[in-house]
Amino acid sequence: MASHAQVSVTAVSKVLNNAYGVSPAMKNKVKTAIEELGYRPQAVARGMRGRTFTLGLVLPHIRNPFFADILDGLTAYLETTDYQAFMIQGGATRKVEQRAVDALLSRQVDGIIMVAPLASKARLEEVAKEKPVVVLARHERSPHYDSVFDDDEAGAELVVRHLIELGHRRIAHITHQDDSIARSADLLHSIRSAAYERVMREHGLEDEIAIATSFYHEQGGYDGARELLRRAPRPTAIFAGADQAALGALAAAHEAGLSVPADVSVAGYDNTHLAALPNISLTSIDQDGHEMGRAAGKLLLERIEGRRTPVRFTVTPTLVVRASTAAPR
Amino acid sequence: MASHAQVSVTAVSKVLNNAYGVSPAMKNKVKTAIEELGYRPQAVARGMRGRTFTLGLVLPHIRNPFFADILDGLTAYLETTDYQAFMIQGGATRKVEQRAVDALLSRQVDGIIMVAPLASKARLEEVAKEKPVVVLARHERSPHYDSVFDDDEAGAELVVRHLIELGHRRIAHITHQDDSIARSADLLHSIRSAAYERVMREHGLEDEIAIATSFYHEQGGYDGARELLRRAPRPTAIFAGADQAALGALAAAHEAGLSVPADVSVAGYDNTHLAALPNISLTSIDQDGHEMGRAAGKLLLERIEGRRTPVRFTVTPTLVVRASTAAPR
Repeated sequence: MASHAQVSVTAVSKVLNNAYGVSPAMKNKVKTAIEELGYRPQAVARGMRGRTFTLGLVLPHIRNPFFADILDGLTAYLETTDYQAFMIQGGATRKVEQRAVDALLSRQVDGIIMVAPLASKARLEEVAKEKPVVVLARHERSPHYDSVFDDDEAGAELVVRHLIELGHRRIAHITHQDDSIARSADLLHSIRSAAYERVMREHGLEDEIAIATSFYHEQGGYDGARELLRRAPRPTAIFAGADQAALGALAAAHEAGLSVPADVSVAGYDNTHLAALPNISLTSIDQDGHEMGRAAGKLLLERIEGRRTPVRFTVTPTLVVRASTAAPR
Repeated sequence: MASHAQVSVTAVSKVLNNAYGVSPAMKNKVKTAIEELGYRPQAVARGMRGRTFTLGLVLPHIRNPFFADILDGLTAYLETTDYQAFMIQGGATRKVEQRAVDALLSRQVDGIIMVAPLASKARLEEVAKEKPVVVLARHERSPHYDSVFDDDEAGAELVVRHLIELGHRRIAHITHQDDSIARSADLLHSIRSAAYERVMREHGLEDEIAIATSFYHEQGGYDGARELLRRAPRPTAIFAGADQAALGALAAAHEAGLSVPADVSVAGYDNTHLAALPNISLTSIDQDGHEMGRAAGKLLLERIEGRRTPVRFTVTPTLVVRASTAAPR
C-alpha cells in the first residue's frame, strides 16, 4: 500500500495512528490511497496486538428506556469479567452509523454489539470479519455473527389477540420507518406490523386494518395516532409498535378529548418502566431487555474466546395487561 | 518500577497492555507493584503517542432523557471535528464510576466529559492531571478543569416563586441523595433544595417547608410524593427537583385519587421532552441540555489544543409553565 500512495511506510503508519507531524497534504494522499484500496488500519494490526478488553455497544440513540434495560443487563454481566463496554451513538442514518462502527474498529475494541442497526446484512458481515459481532433486535441468520432478539411475531400476536378478545374490531397500528436496509422479515417493526395484519385477517378483520407509518418515538406515536383518530369510524384501539410511540398516542388521545380506555384503548411494546407508572398504566409486551443485554455480552465474549458457530438467542415475550386497554363501549 | 517488582520490563509492558503470554502469578506481581507505587500505565505512555481523537463521556446512566439532550448537543458539535465520543456508564457508586474513568484513561482517550460525577473535587483534579476534563452539572471552581452547568439556584427560585405567585403556601420539595462527595454548595440537587428553602423563608413560609429526600428518578419521585401527600394538612404543590422525579410524583398523585393541578400542583426541572406531552404537560425548568453538550465538547477540544485557563460556562434557566400547575382551590 505504501508504494501505491508513493509515501513512506512511516508516514502511512503515522496517518493510520493519527500521530503528530503529518502534513495535511500527506494525510490526504495517504487517505486517498487507503480509500482506493479499501484498506483498513486494523486489518494489518489485527492479531499483532493484545486485547483491549473493551467492547463497543452501538445504540441508535439513548432516548429509549428499553435500551437502558439492555445496557443494565450487559453491565451486570461484564462486572464479572475484565471487560468494559463503551457506548457509541449509531444515529439516524446508515452513514453516521457506519462512522460510529468504524470509530470502534479503528480504536481496537475486541468486539461489537449492535442494537437495532440500520446497516445491511452484508455490511454487518463485513464488520464481523474484522471483529466478533453480536446483533440485537434483528432476525437475520448469518454464519458470521450471533443474534439476540425477541420473538416479535409472537409478541405482536399477543397484543392483537388481547384487543380482539376484549371485543375490539377497529384496531389500528402504528409502525416505524427508518434508514435500515434489510429484508422486511428481519426487521422487528416489519415483523410486528405483519403479525398485526395476519392476526386481523385470521379473525376476518382485513377490512379494519389501518396502519400509520411513522416512528417509534413519542412524536411519531403522536403523529401516527392523530392520523388514525381522524378516521371515520374512529378506531377503538391502537397498537403502537413500541412504548415510546404509545406514549405519543396517549398524548394524542388526551388532546383529542378522548378518554383511555373508555373511548380508545392503547397498547405498546417493550414494557419500559414508564409503562408501569400508575398514571400511564400502559398495556405492553415485556421482552426482558436485561436478559437480552446479558446474553449479548456472554455471546460476544464466547466469540472473542474463539467460538465460530453462530448462535441465535431468542427471548419469549409476555403480555402485561394494564389500565390502558379495556372492552370498547 | 520494573526493579521494584523484580520482573522484566517486557513483562511489565505485557501486563500493562493486557497482552497474551503473561502468567496469572506474574500478572499479580506486577499489579501489586503498580498499586504500591501508585503507577498508571498512561502516565508513562502520555506524550509518547499521538491523539486517538476519542473523547470519553461518563454518564451516570442512560435513563434520563435530559442526558440525551446533552449527548445530542455534543454529537452535533463533534460532527464538525475529527473526534468521536464514546460513552461509558458511571453507575451509582463512586467505585464503579472510578472504574469507568480508569477504563477511559487506560484506553487513551484524549479527554473526558463527566456528567454529574460522584467523585470528589480532589479526585476530579487527579483525573484532570492525566487528561483534559470538563465537568457538567457540578459547581466547583477548579484551576484544573472546566465546568458547564445550569444556574440551579435561579432555576429553583423560578419554580418556587411561580408556585407562590399562584397562591400556594404548602409547597413541598423532593430532593435527591447519592454517593457523591462534594460541598453541598457544589451539587445541583443541594443547590435546588437550598434555593427552595431560601425562597420559602423569604416569603414567610418557613413553617411550610417540607422536603422528602429520595432520588431523581421515577420511583424516587413516587416514593417522595407518597411521603409528602400523607402529611396533614396535605401540600397543595410539589416541586420535584427533576422531571423524572416529577413523573413519579404525578403517578403518586394519580394513585392517591388526587387531580393535578386541581388537588395538587406538580412541577419538575429539566424540561425533558416527556414534560411536553399533552397528557403529562409538566411545568418545568428548561436548562438547554443541547447547548450544555455543545459547550462541553467545545471546551474540551480547546483544552486538548492546549488551553490551561479554566472556564466556567453557565446556562440560564427559564420557566416553562404547563397544565400541571395552577392556583390552589
